[in-house]
Amino acid sequence: MTKENSVQVNVLGLGAMGTALAEALVDAGHPTTVWNRTPGKADGLVARGATAAATAGDAVRGGRLVIACLLDHASVHEVLDPLAGEMAGSTLINLTTTSPAQARELAAWAADAGIAYLSGGIMAVPHMIGKPGSSILYSGSADVFRQYEPLLGLWGTSTYFGEDAGLASLYDLALLSGMYVMFAGFVHGAAMVAPAGVTAREFASMAAPWLSAMTGELEGYATVIDGGDYTVEGQQSLEFSDLGHILDASSEQGVSTEVIGMVQRLIRRQIDAGHGKEGFPRIIESIR
Amino acid sequence: MTKENSVQVNVLGLGAMGTALAEALVDAGHPTTVWNRTPGKADGLVARGATAAATAGDAVRGGRLVIACLLDHASVHEVLDPLAGEMAGSTLINLTTTSPAQARELAAWAADAGIAYLSGGIMAVPHMIGKPGSSILYSGSADVFRQYEPLLGLWGTSTYFGEDAGLASLYDLALLSGMYVMFAGFVHGAAMVAPAGVTAREFASMAAPWLSAMTGELEGYATVIDGGDYTVEGQQSLEFSDLGHILDASSEQGVSTEVIGMVQRLIRRQIDAGHGKEGFPRIIESIR
Repeated sequence: MTKENSVQVNVLGLGAMGTALAEALVDAGHPTTVWNRTPGKADGLVARGATAAATAGDAVRGGRLVIACLLDHASVHEVLDPLAGEMAGSTLINLTTTSPAQARELAAWAADAGIAYLSGGIMAVPHMIGKPGSSILYSGSADVFRQYEPLLGLWGTSTYFGEDAGLASLYDLALLSGMYVMFAGFVHGAAMVAPAGVTAREFASMAAPWLSAMTGELEGYATVIDGGDYTVEGQQSLEFSDLGHILDASSEQGVSTEVIGMVQRLIRRQIDAGHGKEGFPRIIESIR
Repeated sequence: MTKENSVQVNVLGLGAMGTALAEALVDAGHPTTVWNRTPGKADGLVARGATAAATAGDAVRGGRLVIACLLDHASVHEVLDPLAGEMAGSTLINLTTTSPAQARELAAWAADAGIAYLSGGIMAVPHMIGKPGSSILYSGSADVFRQYEPLLGLWGTSTYFGEDAGLASLYDLALLSGMYVMFAGFVHGAAMVAPAGVTAREFASMAAPWLSAMTGELEGYATVIDGGDYTVEGQQSLEFSDLGHILDASSEQGVSTEVIGMVQRLIRRQIDAGHGKEGFPRIIESIR
């Protein structure tokens, strides 16, 4: 880090994620001022070289780049609304999890206040920040993305989707949906094998490589979905995908069928509508 | 393949999976007799070097090792019940998808008939057979597994779980549960981004590496589940995991909340029971 490349950064919000983001900035040599609503969260960062601000106002007055990683959309307004006047001409990169509509609302709020705005969706858990596999999605101001791209790269791979501030959030929530649903599928499987004396760790040691390998099927499903023709040859049919035997086995093991039953309903609705010979990816038609 | 190592194998059932299994045997030089209820499925295999049998009886009379990969448990009985007498002293490796209870029932049936029995669950799609990533789970006769391990290895990585014939099927169905649920999560995400002009293929190109990376979290969740203490420090809390914003965004995009709502219910039940500060893996308690 040469002095010319270092950027004064102000980080608002020191939950696990905000702390991880600030640590990466401090460790790379950027002068970093940090603030959290509840005091005491900054101590580790100060020991690492950060400066603690007593108020959010003190933090944003320290420089022109503000990183927000707060609890939710309402928290962003609570913290920044009183400071909007002082922040004119600044840049706000908001990494707080918001809905696409909330990200667009914040972009409009920032535009009114003369604040350059970039919205980010973090596709990582805190301990992954700055390590392989960490990915952050951005949309909003292309100028902000270009100007700060080297700094953003400290946290993970950066992908920019366009000027619509809601797009990164939409992608973020869509990918998080996939993740949370996958986790539910994992706990269902772990619950099924548990009565046979299989530990969750033993199951995870099989499930992690298995699910990882099966992500290789997604591109093929996507190609069929984009093509819109679910009768393409070579697909696993919806009839073959009927999950009745998995529901039966789940019940036999004393596990609720709530998780796997969700998938079965998507499949059955397509079969019942006369599409049983068509391909499995057609389940997307059950939800849109 | 030396002549001493080659084994006469009889494959019953030539769906996509049975065909893939038979192809691997033929290509490795094992004399292979194949049979399918509906004629015409054997032509490609015969061109490759297999022998087609006119009836299942003709097939099982050709040698002492029978591989069954039929439609379902009922089909196995329909095809093999009339041949039980002739099969005494033979070995049956059943790769038909069955429930654990059905696998145990077939093991008992085989024991009565003097047939050595091994049950297998295939963790692969047909085009993966014999390629990296293909994994087959076995339980039942340890002797059969040991004797035929080199042959089984032609199809993929073999894992043996024990004498309980139902265990491979239980693992199989538990892993398949995880897969189908993950696929449902993927289509939910693809449906969310579609109205913003993002193709399913574009989404898959982000989702596949993302979900694959997130399987890295499963071991940690499993450790908490096995430990039984969901208050362990450093976990993402159930309150933080509330998916209300994802449900809102899904609705805004015109997508049914059926898929993600399933996970939200598991989370909410634990929060409502007073466990909101505890870790996300606690969702397993919502289904068992």
